[in-house]
Amino acid sequence: MDKLIDAIEQAQNPSIVGLDPTEALVPAPVLAAYTEEATNAVDDESQAPAAALAMAYFQFNCAIIDAVADIVPAVKPQIAMYEAIGPAGVDAYTMTCEYAQQQGLYVLGDIKRGDIGSTAAAYAKHFGDDCLGDAWHENGITVNPYLGSDGITPFVEAAAASDGDVFALVRTSNPSSAQIQELELADGAKLYEHVADLVSQWGADHIGRHGYSLLGAVVGATHPQQGSELRARMPHTFFLVPGYGAQGGTAATVRGMFDADGMGAIVNSSRGIIGAWRDDPSYSDDVNASTALDIVARCARQAAMDMRDDLRAMLP
Amino acid sequence: MDKLIDAIEQAQNPSIVGLDPTEALVPAPVLAAYTEEATNAVDDESQAPAAALAMAYFQFNCAIIDAVADIVPAVKPQIAMYEAIGPAGVDAYTMTCEYAQQQGLYVLGDIKRGDIGSTAAAYAKHFGDDCLGDAWHENGITVNPYLGSDGITPFVEAAAASDGDVFALVRTSNPSSAQIQELELADGAKLYEHVADLVSQWGADHIGRHGYSLLGAVVGATHPQQGSELRARMPHTFFLVPGYGAQGGTAATVRGMFDADGMGAIVNSSRGIIGAWRDDPSYSDDVNASTALDIVARCARQAAMDMRDDLRAMLP
Repeated sequence: MDKLIDAIEQAQNPSIVGLDPTEALVPAPVLAAYTEEATNAVDDESQAPAAALAMAYFQFNCAIIDAVADIVPAVKPQIAMYEAIGPAGVDAYTMTCEYAQQQGLYVLGDIKRGDIGSTAAAYAKHFGDDCLGDAWHENGITVNPYLGSDGITPFVEAAAASDGDVFALVRTSNPSSAQIQELELADGAKLYEHVADLVSQWGADHIGRHGYSLLGAVVGATHPQQGSELRARMPHTFFLVPGYGAQGGTAATVRGMFDADGMGAIVNSSRGIIGAWRDDPSYSDDVNASTALDIVARCARQAAMDMRDDLRAMLP
Repeated sequence: MDKLIDAIEQAQNPSIVGLDPTEALVPAPVLAAYTEEATNAVDDESQAPAAALAMAYFQFNCAIIDAVADIVPAVKPQIAMYEAIGPAGVDAYTMTCEYAQQQGLYVLGDIKRGDIGSTAAAYAKHFGDDCLGDAWHENGITVNPYLGSDGITPFVEAAAASDGDVFALVRTSNPSSAQIQELELADGAKLYEHVADLVSQWGADHIGRHGYSLLGAVVGATHPQQGSELRARMPHTFFLVPGYGAQGGTAATVRGMFDADGMGAIVNSSRGIIGAWRDDPSYSDDVNASTALDIVARCARQAAMDMRDDLRAMLP
């Protein structure tokens, strides 16, 4: 986790921008701009709409990345948004990751993978392969703990070998997460607390010079009290905190996820930054794609600065 | 689940072939056969090894599919094996799914996705998109329940709209799965039993003409007693049963996962079928790629027939 923590310290900003494009979050002129180029690029005309959308997402992401690269330490593309397009979207995902790394950003791939051991070992090649190289361009990834240590250890080992990080789901931000994560166990603990203890154990052999393991935890901003308790319960586990902004999290609700030095967590905002252009009075669907991307970039930069300042004001 | 059950009835065979290629499971002459073609196909020479491997995996899969299409009702490609190559592998995955559907097979994409609601809705486009069409060519997919109903409902709704199916992890086949899935809850139930009850509820509004919901469950062949109990506990939930063969499951360990009519489950084998060529005396690394694929096909067909007959002998 040292690379991420160094980047946070340099930016003096524990926030991460979620690059989660959807057709509602990308301006209409940008969505429309790549139809001709896509039609020329594909062999089969039926693939043109997907190719055009993938091109639009990538250009949108590049505009955001250029606008925030000197403000934030990291970005978090959510691969679901790209898989929604099909394989062309997966290409846009890896191109986005590569471009963000080229601009000096730490890339956290929000992929939430998890499977039995032999399969997890295949997924762990997201961190690169000796022969094939680094196809995904991710510095960290998210994983799901439901399969136990078999499903996590291959990721931890691959991350250790490539200076990467892994974040396991512990307490997610969504409303229904309590249905499983808050189940009370026979010993009186909640399930997510037990998962937290396992995650601490699984990462205990990989603690970096900042005192945090390369195996982090996902803890939603929508659970401030539980987040504070988890901070005390797992002092060597770095937190990825989704749920700030659109999902209701604020600087106050995430405060307890940080340690006494104001470190130990990074807070994600997606829609609040990449969709900030939707509230800008200078935008209309009649502007051209280039102007739309300029507005996207200006609004994202301002929103990223506002979020940074909001978090800074809360930290020691 | 009706389409899958009809296919099982037609083949009189409740087995599914896992299309999980790795460099150890694809013969060396096949792995070596696409180097030149791949080098010509890519813009950037550094991408040639991944492109060659993706081509080899796809040709290997086609040989398996052709060999078993009249024996088994379904195939289950594990997307991790393809993501291990990078985006070129994802293309090989979708091409494999499409080819298998063209040969009349039901395709169960083993993707184990799961996320918060808005993100799950994006993943649910694995079942197709009104504008972009069907990019993934999957009839069913696997999902992870750790996020609760928010993470499952979008998949169920998308499946209902497209005649697809969803299989939620309940009790996985791997050794460490007990660490979380067998935790005892305050009410005395095990966690996986509680998840089973939730999965039954979440699928209750979508029961097909064979009496099974479109929301199925993954129940490992390595847990025969628990599988029998789950069969009784969730009578309208169809089971995907991994773990037969290489992981230690047998016809005897999966028997309890079936209902009184010998229906209600489909048993997966991957390595035992796609890797059967490794025990064939006519194979050596000196044969050419075409001969190697012929051996792969012959051995896979025999292994698929043996598995079918093994399961048939156990069923009523």
